[in-house]
Amino acid sequence: MAINTQGSTPVDHRKLTRFVKLAFERLGVEPTDAEIAANVLVMADLRGVDTHGVIRFNPHTWYVKWLLDGEMKAKPDIRIVSENASSALVDGDSGMGMVVGHRAMELAIQKAKDSGVAMVGVRNSRHFGMAAYYAMQALPHDMIGIAMTNASRQVVPTFGREAKFGTNPLCLAAPALDELPFVLDMATTTAAAGKLEVAARREEPIPLGWALDEKAEPTADPRVAQRARRLLPLGGSRDGGSHKGYGLAVLVEILCGVLTGNMTALNSNQFPRGHFFGAIRVDAFRPALDFKSDMDRLIRELKSTPPVEGQERVYVAGEIEFETEKGRAVHGIPLHPSILKGLRDVSEKLGVVYDLE
Amino acid sequence: MAINTQGSTPVDHRKLTRFVKLAFERLGVEPTDAEIAANVLVMADLRGVDTHGVIRFNPHTWYVKWLLDGEMKAKPDIRIVSENASSALVDGDSGMGMVVGHRAMELAIQKAKDSGVAMVGVRNSRHFGMAAYYAMQALPHDMIGIAMTNASRQVVPTFGREAKFGTNPLCLAAPALDELPFVLDMATTTAAAGKLEVAARREEPIPLGWALDEKAEPTADPRVAQRARRLLPLGGSRDGGSHKGYGLAVLVEILCGVLTGNMTALNSNQFPRGHFFGAIRVDAFRPALDFKSDMDRLIRELKSTPPVEGQERVYVAGEIEFETEKGRAVHGIPLHPSILKGLRDVSEKLGVVYDLE
Repeated sequence: MAINTQGSTPVDHRKLTRFVKLAFERLGVEPTDAEIAANVLVMADLRGVDTHGVIRFNPHTWYVKWLLDGEMKAKPDIRIVSENASSALVDGDSGMGMVVGHRAMELAIQKAKDSGVAMVGVRNSRHFGMAAYYAMQALPHDMIGIAMTNASRQVVPTFGREAKFGTNPLCLAAPALDELPFVLDMATTTAAAGKLEVAARREEPIPLGWALDEKAEPTADPRVAQRARRLLPLGGSRDGGSHKGYGLAVLVEILCGVLTGNMTALNSNQFPRGHFFGAIRVDAFRPALDFKSDMDRLIRELKSTPPVEGQERVYVAGEIEFETEKGRAVHGIPLHPSILKGLRDVSEKLGVVYDLE
Repeated sequence: MAINTQGSTPVDHRKLTRFVKLAFERLGVEPTDAEIAANVLVMADLRGVDTHGVIRFNPHTWYVKWLLDGEMKAKPDIRIVSENASSALVDGDSGMGMVVGHRAMELAIQKAKDSGVAMVGVRNSRHFGMAAYYAMQALPHDMIGIAMTNASRQVVPTFGREAKFGTNPLCLAAPALDELPFVLDMATTTAAAGKLEVAARREEPIPLGWALDEKAEPTADPRVAQRARRLLPLGGSRDGGSHKGYGLAVLVEILCGVLTGNMTALNSNQFPRGHFFGAIRVDAFRPALDFKSDMDRLIRELKSTPPVEGQERVYVAGEIEFETEKGRAVHGIPLHPSILKGLRDVSEKLGVVYDLE
């Protein structure tokens, strides 16, 4: 989600992409892989998914640090472990999640071209950034794309007092004709972890269905919630249907973790991660034009729903992100001084020219 | 979910299955199809999903009435419209959803045997009962099963005041080794429509995140909610993450409705329905024994989570239904007098011997 942009500087997304790409290259990443990884990060910033963008690009944490420390390989040997007409298991060899994810989704798309639908599981990968990037790879091929990943433990099961799995997001993207594509990209928690970050920064309370404190009691304090790492599954409480959010999180863990041999539910470490990708070729079912026309009809029907008192209108999944992207592509991505500082640190450390401000 | 069993009579599930099967045969359904349909209905009752069982089996509404009226065909010509190695689109020819669904899932399983994973869309079907039945067809084949269906309009999008889509359930079943299989079968609303029925019968209020009244304002009165037909998506409110429940419902409609050419979102009628089935052969990814052992590890880890104050333990999706099934298989299915009355009416109308009490 978008983070407070007060005091931010707008940065051109092409310059930002080039900067990140060059930095990855200095870290030993091949130019084509560096470009993919830079695109994934900057696309998150363009779409307003700021928690998954260059906020994670500095020498002190995440991608750059992992590459410097050798916990993530710059030149992984990504390989297919097992394969069928419509399925594959890929080993990421501790490579960057963005590169491993991109290639695995390409494989799913290739297989779906031949056999109709395909699914690719991934083990031994790293944090892959924004799930929507991979699902959306399917769109230009008139395919429905699916992307999921498991994540580090910070979510409690319904009735439980200890975290047992991650925010385990799932994403589905489907093409439309004249309307924007449908892109649902959701953590299976009530609120993504990044929302606590936003609330904490703004010093605002959080609703009670979002998280528990260290004693496993509901809390409205985002800083307490951040420390406790006990997010609640979508639904918040049993009455609110949290057994469904909990079930969805386990569904994601089964596909990304159990099917690939890379569970994170039993592992409190950041590494490794498992992913799951799917591609459904629309015209394996019906003509793509018919499908996309009906997507337009569905989307228009939803958008035309009269709103409740106090709301302006009804949205469709992905719509707000596309609007944000349109604006930021023209006016630049607003980056907070602390994020720019991280990028300058990268420039200094790796000797990449800093030309973003 | 289970409905109040006060004043109920326990009925042997084998007798009940035979009775329903014979009644379907009298309605012109072929014996093999009649058996499938009876199994789906009685399995719902066995598992405690009472809203999807023989409560719908009487001459006045639903299956029997639809067959009598000719709105549903006893002998449909179920056919494959388009087909690839891992995908198919099936036309149900207005046949019983239970029979169409069973056959479509069989096709998905057959294709997954050959190519690894497969997905089958269905158009022109009818209400298929409990989604878990179809997903669970995959389990004896060491496959993960997926089942979804669209449904008649009774759910509002986030911020919307009018219902635009159905409760659109999604289900995933995955096999384990010594533990019970994982079976997540969930409406994408906070609470399934049947829960309003239960609350209304018990004259109990419902939580505020479940439904809106006729003025599109939150209501705690289950009867008002039943009349208004404005259920809220999982999450309940925007702060509670209802845009995610709303997105999941649209995801189900895209796969069951847009991909098949059988949307219900633009149609307030009961008919026709679209479904979507998937089968994932576990050993296309890794040895089935490894997968099932890891499922056991995951399930045990979840079940061993210390509970919060006031709760006894943590459950895994499907567990309560399996426990209910075990009990009801031995002690009988508790059927409410009103349900037994419906079955006696069927007996009278169709001349099937009534031997259930």
